[in-house]
Amino acid sequence: MAKYILFDIDDTLFPSTEFSALARKNALTAMIRLGIDKDHETLSSALKSIIEEKGSNYPKHFDELCARLGVEMPAKYVAAAVAAYHDTKTSIQPFPKVPLTLLKLKEQGYGLFIATNGTSIKQWDKLIRLGIVVYFDRVFVSEDIGRTKDEGFFREVLKRLGAQASDCIMVGDREDIDIAPAKSAGIVTVRILKGRYADVPSKADFVAKAIDELPDILQRL
Amino acid sequence: MAKYILFDIDDTLFPSTEFSALARKNALTAMIRLGIDKDHETLSSALKSIIEEKGSNYPKHFDELCARLGVEMPAKYVAAAVAAYHDTKTSIQPFPKVPLTLLKLKEQGYGLFIATNGTSIKQWDKLIRLGIVVYFDRVFVSEDIGRTKDEGFFREVLKRLGAQASDCIMVGDREDIDIAPAKSAGIVTVRILKGRYADVPSKADFVAKAIDELPDILQRL
Repeated sequence: MAKYILFDIDDTLFPSTEFSALARKNALTAMIRLGIDKDHETLSSALKSIIEEKGSNYPKHFDELCARLGVEMPAKYVAAAVAAYHDTKTSIQPFPKVPLTLLKLKEQGYGLFIATNGTSIKQWDKLIRLGIVVYFDRVFVSEDIGRTKDEGFFREVLKRLGAQASDCIMVGDREDIDIAPAKSAGIVTVRILKGRYADVPSKADFVAKAIDELPDILQRL
Repeated sequence: MAKYILFDIDDTLFPSTEFSALARKNALTAMIRLGIDKDHETLSSALKSIIEEKGSNYPKHFDELCARLGVEMPAKYVAAAVAAYHDTKTSIQPFPKVPLTLLKLKEQGYGLFIATNGTSIKQWDKLIRLGIVVYFDRVFVSEDIGRTKDEGFFREVLKRLGAQASDCIMVGDREDIDIAPAKSAGIVTVRILKGRYADVPSKADFVAKAIDELPDILQRL
């Protein structure tokens, strides 16, 4: 019987895609509010190209944006954009049913864990900001495991937990990095249909619209 | 007659020293709240040593703190500390009389400028967070000028403004980097008695407890 539940964070526990889009929009609005001589359309389209070229984790998006558009006094607008972007990113909230569902699962005796790609500090920061850090017994981040979420990642997590695959359930939004590799490692999988990949077909053992369906799913195991 | 007023930022326009102390305190409290196995005294004393050794702008204070104290799962506590520290630093407010005084000076026809040590993005960020960025015609940061505030810094600022020293007033809290070098460059100086250096004896042309005394001082020139 399953005792351990592993959760992804982004677009599983909170609307990551929506917050990222909002953070970028608020950053451009802040630049305009301080008097930058460009319209939202121009800024937005240039920023989109930069993100496509450099990736979404590139730390100098707004410096690059000002450089490409030949903006004078770039520090002023970069500071405004970064402040607005950061304020949005630090105001993240969990999906509505998340805190009470996590509490219910703890009351039912499950061990709850995080299995996420990313850097440790950033992923811990999200759990803290979301106000749900207390529910998780351990947090496994790809940076610490030494590999991004693949079958080997999940085998290493099982080893560190001292658990059999049959003891575990993996809950995530992405077919490619949550469901497929966990399934290959023998773990029961629950796909949450949220975020930008919600329409990707699923081979998960279960699908759910949100994590409040988990208690019912666990009863059916 | 003076037309241009140059302002320092930290401990002149907002209580920088107080906010820095509060940010550090809140960071340590956040670590304890997440269950770090150390008391406030131990954390505070180790952090103080690190700041003394590495300087207050060292970006890895909390990583170093966890390393020195042999803390397990450092990413969790570093994330908590950085979040609390950052939240405090982004909630800075100007000294009470600052916004209305700046507005009054603008209404009286003065050009207002910033002359500050630091990195451009950080100093712009403070002005934006303080909600007073609109009052300043130009912002001169040591990083852009290429030297920290000394006589040469102020001479370069005068050059960029196309102004005579007699056109200008410098307002700041520090005798060593605000008052003395501005005075050497021939600028009239006003020392604001705020922050950790409030008790240092002054050779400024005027001293004031807060910047709302400026309109009166300007009338006496």
